[in-house]
Amino acid sequence: MKKVAVLGAGSWGTALSIVLADNGHDVRLWTHREEQANIINETHKNENYLEIMIPKKIKAYSNLEEAIKDVSAIVLVVPTKAIREVSGQLNNILDSFPTIIHASKGIEPGSLKRVSQMIDEEIEGYNYEDIVVLSGPSHAEEVALRQPTTVTVASINEEKSKIAQELFFNESFRVYTSNDVIGIELGGALKNIIALGAGISDGLGYGDNAKAALITRGLAEITRLGTSLGANPLSFLGLPGVGDLIVTCTSVHSRNWRAGNLLGKGKNLDEVLEQMGMVVEGVRTAKAAYQFAKEQDVEMPITSGIYQILFNDVKPREVVEQLMNRDKREEMDDLSTLLRNRYAQ
Amino acid sequence: MKKVAVLGAGSWGTALSIVLADNGHDVRLWTHREEQANIINETHKNENYLEIMIPKKIKAYSNLEEAIKDVSAIVLVVPTKAIREVSGQLNNILDSFPTIIHASKGIEPGSLKRVSQMIDEEIEGYNYEDIVVLSGPSHAEEVALRQPTTVTVASINEEKSKIAQELFFNESFRVYTSNDVIGIELGGALKNIIALGAGISDGLGYGDNAKAALITRGLAEITRLGTSLGANPLSFLGLPGVGDLIVTCTSVHSRNWRAGNLLGKGKNLDEVLEQMGMVVEGVRTAKAAYQFAKEQDVEMPITSGIYQILFNDVKPREVVEQLMNRDKREEMDDLSTLLRNRYAQ
Repeated sequence: MKKVAVLGAGSWGTALSIVLADNGHDVRLWTHREEQANIINETHKNENYLEIMIPKKIKAYSNLEEAIKDVSAIVLVVPTKAIREVSGQLNNILDSFPTIIHASKGIEPGSLKRVSQMIDEEIEGYNYEDIVVLSGPSHAEEVALRQPTTVTVASINEEKSKIAQELFFNESFRVYTSNDVIGIELGGALKNIIALGAGISDGLGYGDNAKAALITRGLAEITRLGTSLGANPLSFLGLPGVGDLIVTCTSVHSRNWRAGNLLGKGKNLDEVLEQMGMVVEGVRTAKAAYQFAKEQDVEMPITSGIYQILFNDVKPREVVEQLMNRDKREEMDDLSTLLRNRYAQ
Repeated sequence: MKKVAVLGAGSWGTALSIVLADNGHDVRLWTHREEQANIINETHKNENYLEIMIPKKIKAYSNLEEAIKDVSAIVLVVPTKAIREVSGQLNNILDSFPTIIHASKGIEPGSLKRVSQMIDEEIEGYNYEDIVVLSGPSHAEEVALRQPTTVTVASINEEKSKIAQELFFNESFRVYTSNDVIGIELGGALKNIIALGAGISDGLGYGDNAKAALITRGLAEITRLGTSLGANPLSFLGLPGVGDLIVTCTSVHSRNWRAGNLLGKGKNLDEVLEQMGMVVEGVRTAKAAYQFAKEQDVEMPITSGIYQILFNDVKPREVVEQLMNRDKREEMDDLSTLLRNRYAQ
């Protein structure tokens, strides 16, 4: 049994706490809102996020210092935009270096930094190589119901990824390891662009053929971009890549899919964001990826088309026509080159 | 404009005829049933298969010799079990060698031969290298409605795959080329095993996480088997691989998914086959793949589990428990080895 703090009591943080509690660990679930912590401790529910009862042994905290006292691992599950703030708070109160595992998906706008890079910049003295990322196709609701789920944990330090695997692994939550932190983080972030695209395709009234094409060719282009940024192309073919992409693109619960769907039905970005009333991660990720791709000279026709729809008011149907009428080509030419470059050394 | 014969007037043959007619070709659609040919010529409908009107310039034939007279290409779209018979008939009447393109998915039970191998064995003097396979994520109904669709055509002879690409390519039907006939054929056949598994998972009441895991890990294992049989692993990551897998596993119209769904709900194979009243390709493909995997010593835990459910009456839930509790491992170890072996030469 280990002492573990889970920082962030949204649906995913709560679900991961349940997995850890099921495995016998002493779990402290932290939220910055005292009222939410009190309700969880009194009712053993976290109703705004999950409908299921939370094991009584999970204790909620709103005091960060108390929550992390003597823990051997910290699981960071706050929204991407709060990563720097919470990491900065940790920096001031950490007296030893527990294993830090994060399960947040996104890229920082502007700086285009990944989550582990932000954590590294905020927590002094912590080894970047020791940071672990956890990602994969995982609706929180299903994890909370103990339905079969698989994820990947990645760290440059293999020992740390094994510690994370050991903490979470159980009969309904299967955990694989990897050493490709960049690939796992980028897969989780970039897939949201393709989910927007899948929503646009469905909003236009297209069928399964178009969506499968978009997912498959979209996967190829996020793999290209990720590889040019240092990822292992294989990571995009695993659970945090194609697996997460499938879940996000075929679920009507996905926020990115819903935003894309409205775009496909003819609304413009302002109208969509107003109607949704919340952040749509794929929108800013599309902007970031478009910039990256230009800088790195990576061909990303789907991302580029989505960028045109989002920011230049180009009609979705025009973009589809452009995509369908590009030059005739071989299917696997560039992915094959990527892999050859990687392995023929 | 080319003269093209399409052999097989089911939904897929009819849809491909429509694509060819849209491209201005002189299309002859052959069926072995004279009555069906007459109805198509009189009504321009093929109602048992597609609800859409067929362009008037498509002529239906029930006489094979007339249908293929002077054609520059033959598109074979008969069921896998009729491939040998129709190819044998062609053998007796071909007076030149038109480009032969097939769009049938399956493996021959017993011999475990692919479709192009069967064609090669039946048509004397035809170069195996010249045979083209067409495959990808493509519901026939959507193709007939001119909804955006992408497919891959593969031939060892690049000239032949370009001929096929030129014949079919248009603004709603995008065609990529490949030289990996083995990979494209095996992807189309083996995906049906995973579709069975997806149906079983849904039938058990599991959610998106389980299905995404099954598709992703299933993809990895059919890639392993395919590669050991001579395919390029990358083909499984393209349209006829992951693309077709997504369509088949997430569509309730898929026959294999429906069979799996009934198995997941507790019926045994005999009951399922009786209720479906038709051939379920994935069942015999699962048997073939299981045999292949044993012979070639390829690890296929999902296929093996499905085999146990189908033929040894093992309960689906037991198989899921086994799969979830296998040894802890790295995610990409074996795929990485496959690719290294391919490229590090």
